[in-house]
Amino acid sequence: MLIPELSTDEIQVTTGANEGMYAVFTGLLAPGDEVIVFQPFFDQYISNIELTGAKVVYGKINPPADFDKRTVTGDEWTIDWEAFENLITPKTKMVVINSPHNPIGKVFNRSELQKIGDLALKYNFYIVSDEVYENLYYGDFVRIATLSPEIARRTLTVGSAGKSFAATGWRIGWIIGDKEVIPYVSAAHTRICFSTPAPFQEGVASALNDALTNGYYEKTREEYIHKYKIFTSVFDELGLPYTKADGGYFLLVNFKKVKLPEDIVYPAEIKDKKKDFRLAYWLIQEFGVVSIPPSEFYLEEDGKVIEDSLRFAVCKDDSVLEEAVVRLRGLKKFIE
Amino acid sequence: MLIPELSTDEIQVTTGANEGMYAVFTGLLAPGDEVIVFQPFFDQYISNIELTGAKVVYGKINPPADFDKRTVTGDEWTIDWEAFENLITPKTKMVVINSPHNPIGKVFNRSELQKIGDLALKYNFYIVSDEVYENLYYGDFVRIATLSPEIARRTLTVGSAGKSFAATGWRIGWIIGDKEVIPYVSAAHTRICFSTPAPFQEGVASALNDALTNGYYEKTREEYIHKYKIFTSVFDELGLPYTKADGGYFLLVNFKKVKLPEDIVYPAEIKDKKKDFRLAYWLIQEFGVVSIPPSEFYLEEDGKVIEDSLRFAVCKDDSVLEEAVVRLRGLKKFIE
Repeated sequence: MLIPELSTDEIQVTTGANEGMYAVFTGLLAPGDEVIVFQPFFDQYISNIELTGAKVVYGKINPPADFDKRTVTGDEWTIDWEAFENLITPKTKMVVINSPHNPIGKVFNRSELQKIGDLALKYNFYIVSDEVYENLYYGDFVRIATLSPEIARRTLTVGSAGKSFAATGWRIGWIIGDKEVIPYVSAAHTRICFSTPAPFQEGVASALNDALTNGYYEKTREEYIHKYKIFTSVFDELGLPYTKADGGYFLLVNFKKVKLPEDIVYPAEIKDKKKDFRLAYWLIQEFGVVSIPPSEFYLEEDGKVIEDSLRFAVCKDDSVLEEAVVRLRGLKKFIE
Repeated sequence: MLIPELSTDEIQVTTGANEGMYAVFTGLLAPGDEVIVFQPFFDQYISNIELTGAKVVYGKINPPADFDKRTVTGDEWTIDWEAFENLITPKTKMVVINSPHNPIGKVFNRSELQKIGDLALKYNFYIVSDEVYENLYYGDFVRIATLSPEIARRTLTVGSAGKSFAATGWRIGWIIGDKEVIPYVSAAHTRICFSTPAPFQEGVASALNDALTNGYYEKTREEYIHKYKIFTSVFDELGLPYTKADGGYFLLVNFKKVKLPEDIVYPAEIKDKKKDFRLAYWLIQEFGVVSIPPSEFYLEEDGKVIEDSLRFAVCKDDSVLEEAVVRLRGLKKFIE
């Protein structure tokens, strides 16, 4: 929800959240600067940062060791704080976080955000907080910029009409930040995107206003809780563990117990990829269910941790999810 | 007009023509490459090129020496071909041209385009042909990509729904080029703009189809010829020379004969700028007519040639232009 008392110096409406983040990177980074991004990451961050000549330094959000054996919570995916602090150098200009998180479904808790905020003040870096799923949370949701005025001054918060109003083709996003910082973002955005679709800006402004009073966000959250209930039921039945989503619309399911048939002929471009690519390919061929191989959210050398998992999206009509449940029951005969 | 038989490898729909050109630069340029841009230039080119780490090399389109004394044609604004060829180095990766031209109103003729095309083949550089005013021409209009298949292979043609259908807030443009080249543009565009406004893509597709048969372009050209007729009448009356526009919707008028009153108090940010800034400021204050100071289309050190001129835009309702004519008649008492 946008803060109504923001001045125009503190918010830049952007052509989509992605273009907004690219404007943040372009406006604030110089070649040689370092940006810490946690694995798993949304891949667009990487090229957007590297296009500025800055360097991506990879941190990690680690799953619990036994996440292939039991269903876990987002809170159990944790940052190793010592390892994170060791990545910080005098060149560290920025840390990118994402809450609710794609693909984990983790919502960062207050204590985690406080640690990141404290480090930002200690080492003087910006926090880019990608909160595009800000209205899709199913427990608590804390914005890092609300922790203190000092942290707010170092934070750029990213929002998305596409995610908040299921209108990803509209290309309306926004960046909220300090009035000393936003002008750099605005200058870069003007050069990247000459302007932002004008009619959709009007539409989104109305939607944001209406949603303050018409219960849209609450209703949407209830709908998504129901969608998760439908879709997770089949994995509960099958005993396939997953990460309970605290936010967003993704579900990360661990398929280690599933035995891939040995006679599948994979397309050439998949053969040398990690197991999750083969799993995803097989799931389409065998069941007609599409998922995303989450090793794409990791560096090549770090993706092994996730290669038994698949990311599903529940932003579908209930009937589609119900049909997926029926089809995925067929996994049973492939579970040892 | 889009060529219906283009394959998807030969066209990239972009979030506005500007974002499309930025994708061309990002996809094809490396740091250290040189791009020749002619003065006067659309300022967005410069930052878009420089953001990639490439270097802008400035050529010139020269007005006739007496353009402050008589109304001239676009053809009289010329490239010094020897000077242009002298700018070309082994690092020259690209030349940007703009036809119909903003702010001159010049439409490059076949002979000029052939010279540029021949040089592109001789020295192996790309031609970026910004043709966003492609449907607004009032005489002949030649596309450089139509001169030969060899030139077409080196050319990226830029189009704009915003300009063609007076919908600049929609952010739909396109880049047409060789199927070996467009994939680089597409890759960059995906990273710059995650996608392009989907509903407006549908609208523009319909408009493009309809315009093939409903006479929209022809009717629009007639309307613009009429708008120019209305608006240029006051400068003919006053004896203020201008460049006859062969295309686009701008008019470059020379105000050398106009004596600026000496008692005007200019805002601080204008005081040290060239005379055209003072002229434009005064025109707003005195007559309520807005123009653009065209020295902004030049490097600081080269803008003197244009400092007596102002750029007007005729993309207004006829009644607005008629009112401007009435107001600008007041210039008479400032002409010596």
